Amino acid sequence: MKKWLLTAAIATSFGAVADEGMWQPHQLPAMADELKAKGLEIDVNSISKLTEFPMNAVISLGGCTASFVSPKGLVVTNHHCAYGSIQYNSTPENNLLRDGFLAKTFADELPATPGSRVYVTESVVDVTDKVKDGLENKIGNAFYKGVEQKEKGLVAECEKEDGYRCKVYSFHGGLEYYLVKQLEIRDVRLVYNPAASVGKYGGDVDNWMWPRHTGDYSFYRAYVSKDGKPADFSKDNVPFEPKSFLKVSAKGVSEGDFVMVAGYPGRTNRYRTAYEVENQFEWSYPEGKVLRERLIEIIKETAPEGSDERIKYESSIAGLANYAKNFTSMIEFYGKSTMLDDRKALEQKLANWINADSKRKQQYGKVLAELDKLIAKSQQDQERDLLLGYMGYSTMMSTANRLYRLANEKALPDMEREPGYQDRDMTRFTSGMERIERRYAASVDKAMLADLITRYAALPKDQRLPAFDKAFGITDNFDAAKLNKTLDKMYANTSLSDKEVRLAWMEKSVVEFNNSKDPFIQYAVATYDERMKREKEKKQLAGELMKVRPMYMDAIIAYNRELGKPVYADANSSLRVTVGHVKGYSPEDGLYAEPFTRLEGILAKDTGVEPFNAPAKELELIANKQYGDYYVKSLDSVPVNFLSTLDTTGGNSGSPTLNGRAELVGLLFDGVYESIIGDWGYDTETNRSIQVDSRYMLWVMKYLDNADNLLEEMEIVN
Amino acid sequence: MKKWLLTAAIATSFGAVADEGMWQPHQLPAMADELKAKGLEIDVNSISKLTEFPMNAVISLGGCTASFVSPKGLVVTNHHCAYGSIQYNSTPENNLLRDGFLAKTFADELPATPGSRVYVTESVVDVTDKVKDGLENKIGNAFYKGVEQKEKGLVAECEKEDGYRCKVYSFHGGLEYYLVKQLEIRDVRLVYNPAASVGKYGGDVDNWMWPRHTGDYSFYRAYVSKDGKPADFSKDNVPFEPKSFLKVSAKGVSEGDFVMVAGYPGRTNRYRTAYEVENQFEWSYPEGKVLRERLIEIIKETAPEGSDERIKYESSIAGLANYAKNFTSMIEFYGKSTMLDDRKALEQKLANWINADSKRKQQYGKVLAELDKLIAKSQQDQERDLLLGYMGYSTMMSTANRLYRLANEKALPDMEREPGYQDRDMTRFTSGMERIERRYAASVDKAMLADLITRYAALPKDQRLPAFDKAFGITDNFDAAKLNKTLDKMYANTSLSDKEVRLAWMEKSVVEFNNSKDPFIQYAVATYDERMKREKEKKQLAGELMKVRPMYMDAIIAYNRELGKPVYADANSSLRVTVGHVKGYSPEDGLYAEPFTRLEGILAKDTGVEPFNAPAKELELIANKQYGDYYVKSLDSVPVNFLSTLDTTGGNSGSPTLNGRAELVGLLFDGVYESIIGDWGYDTETNRSIQVDSRYMLWVMKYLDNADNLLEEMEIVN
Repeated sequence: MKKWLLTAAIATSFGAVADEGMWQPHQLPAMADELKAKGLEIDVNSISKLTEFPMNAVISLGGCTASFVSPKGLVVTNHHCAYGSIQYNSTPENNLLRDGFLAKTFADELPATPGSRVYVTESVVDVTDKVKDGLENKIGNAFYKGVEQKEKGLVAECEKEDGYRCKVYSFHGGLEYYLVKQLEIRDVRLVYNPAASVGKYGGDVDNWMWPRHTGDYSFYRAYVSKDGKPADFSKDNVPFEPKSFLKVSAKGVSEGDFVMVAGYPGRTNRYRTAYEVENQFEWSYPEGKVLRERLIEIIKETAPEGSDERIKYESSIAGLANYAKNFTSMIEFYGKSTMLDDRKALEQKLANWINADSKRKQQYGKVLAELDKLIAKSQQDQERDLLLGYMGYSTMMSTANRLYRLANEKALPDMEREPGYQDRDMTRFTSGMERIERRYAASVDKAMLADLITRYAALPKDQRLPAFDKAFGITDNFDAAKLNKTLDKMYANTSLSDKEVRLAWMEKSVVEFNNSKDPFIQYAVATYDERMKREKEKKQLAGELMKVRPMYMDAIIAYNRELGKPVYADANSSLRVTVGHVKGYSPEDGLYAEPFTRLEGILAKDTGVEPFNAPAKELELIANKQYGDYYVKSLDSVPVNFLSTLDTTGGNSGSPTLNGRAELVGLLFDGVYESIIGDWGYDTETNRSIQVDSRYMLWVMKYLDNADNLLEEMEIVN
Repeated sequence: MKKWLLTAAIATSFGAVADEGMWQPHQLPAMADELKAKGLEIDVNSISKLTEFPMNAVISLGGCTASFVSPKGLVVTNHHCAYGSIQYNSTPENNLLRDGFLAKTFADELPATPGSRVYVTESVVDVTDKVKDGLENKIGNAFYKGVEQKEKGLVAECEKEDGYRCKVYSFHGGLEYYLVKQLEIRDVRLVYNPAASVGKYGGDVDNWMWPRHTGDYSFYRAYVSKDGKPADFSKDNVPFEPKSFLKVSAKGVSEGDFVMVAGYPGRTNRYRTAYEVENQFEWSYPEGKVLRERLIEIIKETAPEGSDERIKYESSIAGLANYAKNFTSMIEFYGKSTMLDDRKALEQKLANWINADSKRKQQYGKVLAELDKLIAKSQQDQERDLLLGYMGYSTMMSTANRLYRLANEKALPDMEREPGYQDRDMTRFTSGMERIERRYAASVDKAMLADLITRYAALPKDQRLPAFDKAFGITDNFDAAKLNKTLDKMYANTSLSDKEVRLAWMEKSVVEFNNSKDPFIQYAVATYDERMKREKEKKQLAGELMKVRPMYMDAIIAYNRELGKPVYADANSSLRVTVGHVKGYSPEDGLYAEPFTRLEGILAKDTGVEPFNAPAKELELIANKQYGDYYVKSLDSVPVNFLSTLDTTGGNSGSPTLNGRAELVGLLFDGVYESIIGDWGYDTETNRSIQVDSRYMLWVMKYLDNADNLLEEMEIVN
């Protein structure tokens, strides 16, 4: 039975043994000796400075990570990160997704999907004091609002310089705040993507699985105006010239080699309390899994295979299924682990340490109990909140809510508006409203909403919301036929499915909403106060948590400081560095997952049917052992994907995996099934990231896709 | 893509590289140097002599292999080989299958299921000349009958000595014949079996799978009369004292170690022609799979879970599913392999060699063409024959056929009767007729028969059999409702479901059958001549094949002789020796199946639900790392199962796996999924047998089941 390790900071001794930790760059110099011992060859100070090589070559796409690989702004990331842009440029006649795409000249490059961005981090500044200043005596909602106000101020100040996007990130639940300033490049173009039968090989079947044979890479290019400033797409724009770029290794890595990743991991929960862990794994994940699986069923029933509706919902199905699988793994491995007991034991250790000293006892003695009390409060209506959350899958409901909210927020000065409704958010808001058509069908939307409302109606009355009940005619004696009739009428009479109508509502006043006859607008209006009240209660609680959780984290950090151990913060989409090694693992007793897969694995897996339908030419190259320049003797083949101990999560997709000299040896694109639960605790034995090997990328580019222009543009080293 | 090797004899160089080959003991001395190089420590001559240690300790149970492990006739075999006896002695109150059983004294030992036998091979004599003498000029049916007559004569002569069972085995399709004489011990008793949650751990889910954690072993004891002769069960009988017995190794084996197995492999098809291979994999296996899966469905539909009927058909389901899975694997790996092309290439090589010499050309030049012509003829009605074969699953139909056949055969002198209907067969025949109740329900029997007849009715008229058609009212316009009515009436009016009635029919004359009103008897009578005609045609063809196939094998052997390579015969249930090594394998690119599993794997797999419900005490022992005397440092645990390259197949179950000193280091009980197709060609890369490790057996016996009496009785060595 597996032993779960909470964190390197608490449960394991940091050092050569464990490769756990998502470090903020500024933490690295203190770990210089360990990093050198692990295999870092370049100066540790360079990876701690964002404005120096190699860190300034690592960029964010918003949700994915990427890196510059040429002085002309060539960007490499995952195929699945560029997927939207590939799909956007595909037509039935010119199917770039299916056939792949290669711009032989700069002029052939295609605009990425609207809204695509390249974010180049230029500075990260500790603003903890600025954020907290003057808020010492505020609590609850006032504190929450106060912090939000400070953040908005800092962001506004930062974004005064044109072409920048700024954000304040909170660390350790609010113990520290950092202001991140990123150059926001808006003209992003698609340069090259392999065929989906390479770039998405294995598809959803192999998602989170090993062995893996996915060529999950694609190339963008960042463009700016002639004077080097971010600009909207224009033929006159020129390639962006980054301060530095990564060299691509043709030599690659071997088993045991040092690797590191810089990237933007989204979210982890490594410091949650035992109480939170228990609720998450024993209530939230199981419930979420049920809802996701049911929504998938509903889509499939309502939009049969081959129908137009089905095409619109394929990505919803993929998203629902992705996390249904994720939750399934979470539940499975939690069941096999001693995670909960281990975490309780760690809390006990921490408590013993706190209680051993009267000063500590006074400072931290009650903090865990207080924290758990707030958490308990936040879980009070979680069944209802979960259902209301999933109602976000109903486009009509969420669109009406968002539009009416916008009308209300617009009545306020910009700086007082809810984040997401400020002027700076309107580009994204508008494109969101525009894109709905592609993913909406009334029949499916209605069926999903009907199911969720039916579940909601079964809640005890004191959990239900009167205005919501009234809007859908819900009483203690739930009448499914009546609800169905209500919804039928709403969908028949709403005009929110019309793009122009939605965009027009973006400009309308609260009064106009109040007078609307659109049934979804009427619903949004009728339930608005109730929703706002609920939101305020949540913020009140959030504000309280923002005071208590940092105290808890402070205790953990102090405890570890005494043990001589650094503590990394939970992931929060900010730039992190993680170091590790190329290494296999044992998924179960008697089986060993080897660190590399080989070209031959593609031949063996291939069925000719998607997602195992490699291009005929590739199969032929492999069958004829045309390994070319990328042959690796120890594997007697060309490596395709490899495993590493790197500590990563969603958001790290597309991250350059670097060797000790900071040369690109692969792109991170996934983790193994056993490491999904790693978001809650890194397990040295099973936490493995999956990379596409640089040698496979180069092999495909050279022998399959003839991307000689890019091979020449990049600096390839041995 | 895998390269399939036809045989060591043809496709690979025999020697240290390949562990392929199921050798007749007398072939071993010629391979002495190679065996020694591989790791055999004892004199090769001893394993070539059946009457010396260790070969005289290896015995057959008929369908399974076993071995003596004490001077008092203690026998060890697989749990799944003793399954029937364990089940036979189980009651709801005293469930030996569920709880396990240990006789603490000889007096506590329980009679095995009726018909259980221990066969001790005492001699194997080459009788090729005797069989073929005088048959030189006979062909077809006459040759077939002639061989059968010779065999019956040799068997009758051999069995004159009381307590022996004899059989003539044909090798290489009839190139050689050997008479095997076996002491037939009839008093067999159950001594000890672990709980099913150990002995059948993983059940059907893990069947043919790795990683594996099955304690697939049980103990019998052979008893004889006081004067040492085989005898029916009697309290006065005494334990049989074998000439030798195997020592059990507590030290076990390590990765790379030499192992060998002596056992009774059932059937392989390593020398089939490309033409036969193609038909088998592209027609027979897919068709068989469809029928098996459909019959399982029918049983499940007709006999719902929990019904009495279902209990009766559980073993039918298991049998059908076992080979449905087998066929699925065959089809899967054939699709991935180049087996057919490789075999064609080998035939070409053989043809080239034959044609290079005029004498050879005259002798063998036409043999492959002739062989394939006969094979084509035998496949002519294969669709019909397959359906009629599966109708054997209808107990009523097969019982009626067999009883009427018996009446006809009994009209002949014993030596002229069909094998299976001679006096020597009557004990088995009777117990077969007695046992039917436990596995029969009219509703299921009818549903299966209706499905098969419906399929049969869809055959073109020239393939159908007129008498059969008439018996079931089948015309070109098939009427399902009519068939259903016919079958309803037949099942309503037959009395063959009554044991006494069946036994009574065993004594009746042909005339009595002809006058019977029992609808199944009437069917058997009405179709008898037609069946006999068909059988005669088959025998005609078999007789021709028995002349041609040996010539083909003769050519193969001559060809290999020139290459200095010995040729082993296809398995035929006779005693064989195979040698190999403890070794893992790669089931797919990027994965490695390690050669050993460990106790911890049981903990990790355990769900508490059958078949992953290890005894609580075992789980506790493992959780507390109570490895005791059987701890292996390199595994940091006790090994449970291990993989070897041994070349084995069904019938080898229960075979003792021996180290170089012929000490028992495990029991063979399965092969991995990828090696199922190994019956048609041994692949060095993926052919792996699965053994239960002697250390796991001893660990369970000592720490879980307290089988101290047996541990003391056996000779355990380090």
